[in-house]
Amino acid sequence: MTDTNRQVLLAKRPVGEPVPDDFELVSSAIPTPGEGQFLARTIYLSLDPYMRGRMNAERSYSDPVPIGGVMEGGTVGFVEHSNHPEFATGDLVVGRAGWQEYAISDGTGMRKVDPATKPLSYALGVLGMPGMTAYTGLLNLGQPKKGETLVVAAASGAVGSVVGQIAKIKGCRAVGVAGGAEKCSFVTDELGFDACLDHHADDFEAQLAAACPDGVDIYFENVAGRVLRAVIPLFNFFSRMPVCGLISQYNLTEAPEGPDYLPVLMRAVLTNRIAMRGFIVRDYADQEADFLRDVGQWISEGRIKYREDRTAGLENAPATLIGLLKGNNFGKAIIEVSDDPLDA
Amino acid sequence: MTDTNRQVLLAKRPVGEPVPDDFELVSSAIPTPGEGQFLARTIYLSLDPYMRGRMNAERSYSDPVPIGGVMEGGTVGFVEHSNHPEFATGDLVVGRAGWQEYAISDGTGMRKVDPATKPLSYALGVLGMPGMTAYTGLLNLGQPKKGETLVVAAASGAVGSVVGQIAKIKGCRAVGVAGGAEKCSFVTDELGFDACLDHHADDFEAQLAAACPDGVDIYFENVAGRVLRAVIPLFNFFSRMPVCGLISQYNLTEAPEGPDYLPVLMRAVLTNRIAMRGFIVRDYADQEADFLRDVGQWISEGRIKYREDRTAGLENAPATLIGLLKGNNFGKAIIEVSDDPLDA
Repeated sequence: MTDTNRQVLLAKRPVGEPVPDDFELVSSAIPTPGEGQFLARTIYLSLDPYMRGRMNAERSYSDPVPIGGVMEGGTVGFVEHSNHPEFATGDLVVGRAGWQEYAISDGTGMRKVDPATKPLSYALGVLGMPGMTAYTGLLNLGQPKKGETLVVAAASGAVGSVVGQIAKIKGCRAVGVAGGAEKCSFVTDELGFDACLDHHADDFEAQLAAACPDGVDIYFENVAGRVLRAVIPLFNFFSRMPVCGLISQYNLTEAPEGPDYLPVLMRAVLTNRIAMRGFIVRDYADQEADFLRDVGQWISEGRIKYREDRTAGLENAPATLIGLLKGNNFGKAIIEVSDDPLDA
Repeated sequence: MTDTNRQVLLAKRPVGEPVPDDFELVSSAIPTPGEGQFLARTIYLSLDPYMRGRMNAERSYSDPVPIGGVMEGGTVGFVEHSNHPEFATGDLVVGRAGWQEYAISDGTGMRKVDPATKPLSYALGVLGMPGMTAYTGLLNLGQPKKGETLVVAAASGAVGSVVGQIAKIKGCRAVGVAGGAEKCSFVTDELGFDACLDHHADDFEAQLAAACPDGVDIYFENVAGRVLRAVIPLFNFFSRMPVCGLISQYNLTEAPEGPDYLPVLMRAVLTNRIAMRGFIVRDYADQEADFLRDVGQWISEGRIKYREDRTAGLENAPATLIGLLKGNNFGKAIIEVSDDPLDA
């Protein structure tokens, strides 16, 4: 880091898969906080699939990033200088400072991180937005019951890994889907899922059916596409489908070629009385204390494990996000933007 | 009617649209009730879209009708002779005696009809299964709130007409979809919907958008197909979609040609946090008393109106069901099987 503030801006709206030219890395002077503001140095930046949606112009659950605007993202930062009564120099803060090395904040959406959080980057993962997404979506909408079967894709990732481990804690059979043998081994051997299937396999559909001998009661939707189509015939009566993400289709620009699977889904929803529900984590903001208590305890007991995939340097964020949308990451994607004061 | 019992059997499983040869009309002697049984003469037979599903071999929420079995259906009957302690000669009963002029029953699934129900066939419609489907699906899953917009297709039909009128009673804007100008006029002029659009119109999608200037909060799904695709872009945040029926796709034998609209639906479910849920009326069997009380009162107050489309003669049931699946009926389809003792 130097005396300049490097930022990654949205240069163009991607058509289909994002490319490096859709982003622009710029440098400017480090800004000075005004009255009631503080300056935070970004330590960690979280990269997450939802960011693809923010790059589009269309209405979503949030406003798009404007062309020329700083890319949005969750961050952990270090307060370098403060004119804000509630934040002091040296505080560690988590919030949404975006893809930049320094940010000015008036405190909106920022909260202090407990310095006992180790590693600090967990505040962006298992103890942050992705972890809370898994916890709230699974418990509120998935409603896991002992003996039921759950399927979750992106099972080695930031959300899926927590979904499956909480399902196990609740007494379910957890079946993961991931890309490649290495990730699948991690999901079963390290995370303790009952099975994990490679969605690249030619006979993936048959493998999934074999791994779910009693059908599927909960499908936690992270990916859509081939995995969703493979789950549809397996749904049990009164099954639940929290819809959290659709990573396989974020780069679609229009309805893809057929056949048309919409009637197939609708028939399954009707005959099995499936409850499908889209959600985002802030719909459950009032459950944050429960989340931090429960997941913090499960981590300390060794019942939830978590893997990160770290990349150093803000300049590598665009390529890392592009790779993330292709499934190249292995674990929660984190950009190391500047030195972590808790790393001795 | 003669001394014989005519029955309509399922002769073959239809491939796509049912044809007359899929049914067989047979005659046999009128059966004699044994101990604990009664003989009911069918007065009215209800024809409903779900019957198409029972003609298939595949698993659904109910078992299929076997080849050579009597077609299933709701009926109002007159007890001709009884050896059952709870039913007496002359009682009027509603149940599922199927497509036949006489049926033997041990009372399972049968209940007496209040002879004050006029016309008696309402026990198969607005005060029977279709009415209770509308009432329970809309109130439990649709959760209508004052000022919201509801869309329902098959709006002149047995379920849709009641859905829209209850939505109006709850303070919603009710937008119907129906086939043809005559049905649409009935839906607005007689039933009091705010708008009704002809799904045959070239610019149906634009008309629907114009009729829903504040978007769609509840889409009560009866039909799927073109209507569903037109509603998808109109969903508001936190909208609800009770999935009751899919009449436009019951004759499909496989996923139709593309484009593939499944990703389009999934994106809408996620970004708008739509709650979709399949249901069937017996999921809410414990709400029957509430239903009969509320809807009975609304009918007596003139707030719910109801239209029937009657056809005389059991022999006409196959052609009537075939037509129903094409939208040829105008109002609740009822087969007049034998004389109604309440018709003076």
